[in-house]
Amino acid sequence: MSKPFVFEKPMGMRDTLPVLYQVKQQVRTVMEQEIREWGYQFIQTPTLEYYDTVGEASAILDQQLFKLLDSEGKTLVLRPDMTAPIARVVSSSMKDVSYPIRLAYDSAVFRSQQREGGRPAEFEQVGVELIGDGTSSADAEVIALMVSTLSKAGLQEFKVAVGHIGFLNELFVEILGNEDRAEELLRYLYEKNYVGYASHVKSLPLSSIDKKRLLDLLHLRGGEEVLKLAEDLTAVGGRKAISDLRELFNILELYGVQDKIVLDFTLFSHMSYYTGIVFEGYTNELGFPLCSGGRYDQLLGEFGRSAQAIGFGIRLDYLLEALSAKEPSASRSCIIFSAENRKEAIAKSRELREQGRSVVVQDISGVGNVDEYSGRFQEVIYVIGKSEKGGAQ
Amino acid sequence: MSKPFVFEKPMGMRDTLPVLYQVKQQVRTVMEQEIREWGYQFIQTPTLEYYDTVGEASAILDQQLFKLLDSEGKTLVLRPDMTAPIARVVSSSMKDVSYPIRLAYDSAVFRSQQREGGRPAEFEQVGVELIGDGTSSADAEVIALMVSTLSKAGLQEFKVAVGHIGFLNELFVEILGNEDRAEELLRYLYEKNYVGYASHVKSLPLSSIDKKRLLDLLHLRGGEEVLKLAEDLTAVGGRKAISDLRELFNILELYGVQDKIVLDFTLFSHMSYYTGIVFEGYTNELGFPLCSGGRYDQLLGEFGRSAQAIGFGIRLDYLLEALSAKEPSASRSCIIFSAENRKEAIAKSRELREQGRSVVVQDISGVGNVDEYSGRFQEVIYVIGKSEKGGAQ
Repeated sequence: MSKPFVFEKPMGMRDTLPVLYQVKQQVRTVMEQEIREWGYQFIQTPTLEYYDTVGEASAILDQQLFKLLDSEGKTLVLRPDMTAPIARVVSSSMKDVSYPIRLAYDSAVFRSQQREGGRPAEFEQVGVELIGDGTSSADAEVIALMVSTLSKAGLQEFKVAVGHIGFLNELFVEILGNEDRAEELLRYLYEKNYVGYASHVKSLPLSSIDKKRLLDLLHLRGGEEVLKLAEDLTAVGGRKAISDLRELFNILELYGVQDKIVLDFTLFSHMSYYTGIVFEGYTNELGFPLCSGGRYDQLLGEFGRSAQAIGFGIRLDYLLEALSAKEPSASRSCIIFSAENRKEAIAKSRELREQGRSVVVQDISGVGNVDEYSGRFQEVIYVIGKSEKGGAQ
Repeated sequence: MSKPFVFEKPMGMRDTLPVLYQVKQQVRTVMEQEIREWGYQFIQTPTLEYYDTVGEASAILDQQLFKLLDSEGKTLVLRPDMTAPIARVVSSSMKDVSYPIRLAYDSAVFRSQQREGGRPAEFEQVGVELIGDGTSSADAEVIALMVSTLSKAGLQEFKVAVGHIGFLNELFVEILGNEDRAEELLRYLYEKNYVGYASHVKSLPLSSIDKKRLLDLLHLRGGEEVLKLAEDLTAVGGRKAISDLRELFNILELYGVQDKIVLDFTLFSHMSYYTGIVFEGYTNELGFPLCSGGRYDQLLGEFGRSAQAIGFGIRLDYLLEALSAKEPSASRSCIIFSAENRKEAIAKSRELREQGRSVVVQDISGVGNVDEYSGRFQEVIYVIGKSEKGGAQ
């Protein structure tokens, strides 16, 4: 096998260079501030977790996990999401903290990619988990916070599609009779392959009324009015989901974010642990969601401390892409000095830094090409020559 | 093999819970601000690197590397330090940026631990690399910045020991004649086993004058005066190192940090790539250095873009321990509401958050034990009951 070149990085791995770092840091800071103001507390969990605990509980496909063996032969994974690690923390170190618990994170997660030039295998997520509260208030709070966090980050045009896993499950089982057949339809929805969905529905041995119901589902996207349409589609099963969504929508109006919301009964998220409300955020700039979330009322039980829970995660890389981030405005100055003026150069730098400015102090004998070097700065101050005061050039 | 319990974490892996997270974040922010003011630019590199590139170049022992295989069978490592990844970046994506280059990072690094209850296997380092400048100005700048960063973080009492790899190498080869014998003595110094060093020296087949020189080395720790003593010890070889240190010390006086500096000719760092000045920071609270650094003039060449370079890294976990960090002052408020007062509760929260306060809005029907829950907050506002205005309790 050929050795990698010294400058190569593993598949899906990226460097963040200074300009992007600064943009990222600014966005990150604003988001964290907003999330903190909503009373969420940030935590950090380790990069490595046991496969048998967090790895199994996470909804990420096995082939997407980065796995390794520890010195005892146990399988470890690089955390593929933050929801399962937080469930572990809440069930262990925080087991004496009563519910509800509001936690937040800003962490890298890892998903192995099969092709070079594909998606990043390591990316940063900013998110929250509201654990131990099953009310519609909790659903609305988490969605409103996601909207508010995106807005504060500077995102102008975006929509949040909100659906309900319960509605789809109930409707499909009601019409198709069993879960295997339901699963096939869910896969089309997950892939957002609506053409495939429609032609599959047409091929099913169903009455034309039931086929129409399944096809009409595809139109259940829009404002409050689709709640009524959804009611017409389902006999009994989906009613609870519809009333959940109605209450949610009403509360979101109180938060003043209803114009960002699209009710979408076709929404089916890949996260296998979702049990109720699910949602995804979109912008015109991207062909895929930049954030998502949902209610997961079973996961905590797997860690031995049952609780209803809901959360969201925002992908920082996608958000930055959608922001088509401007160059940061912060500028750097450079003081170039010769040895005999060192004292003055250091004093000058101290003065400028006390004003909060970013100042390089550079010994001229350490620079190869001074012209090229100084071109990198917004301001260059020369303190060279024998004069006590140096000369500004 | 037994399965791990659901609440277990892999060996050496830690969670950072809310209170510690907040302290960490405050310290981190102050340090990043200071480093930025000195004109350093932050970058991020991926968690995974190729073993054959960054893994090999790093100075970390093979058994301390976390290794895994990618889908093509190539060996990957979790980055064990940041110096080698930065050398890779400077030699690839930044190859067109002329020297000197000032970069900084705040990143997790990974070192596998063999025993539970031992040291953390994942920890955060804040550091800088000044690449492409071999002057004493660069040495002094990096040390002065480390001192300044620690001070800004709130560390009061600390010292930075400064030594020189070149001095030790030259002196030992001068006296012992070959590098193998030198290596044995260096190992004692690296382990800071001065008793072992002394008894080993006594056992060597050397003249009593040479033995005395090797033993006198142990006293070469202190202020500027030890430079003279060091000169008496070495015939020719160590003179360059001594004059480097003298110039460095003079510049550090201009930075006003000389009272933090201890010249220490016995200092020998484990980082195998160091070639000149080395240094370590200490406090009375810890029995081991909380930060370290040095000059490494060969490493960049391994990545195909030769350069003299110097840098430091501060361990955030050790720094927090030394700060015996106080609880953060930021407080959280909670508005507990009943459904009919939701609108008022949301309005109130908006008002408080606009003042930058951290406010939880909690539906009372989502809380099991209200007394216990409300005890978690510095301020609790009840908006319950039928009155339009709610009641503060």
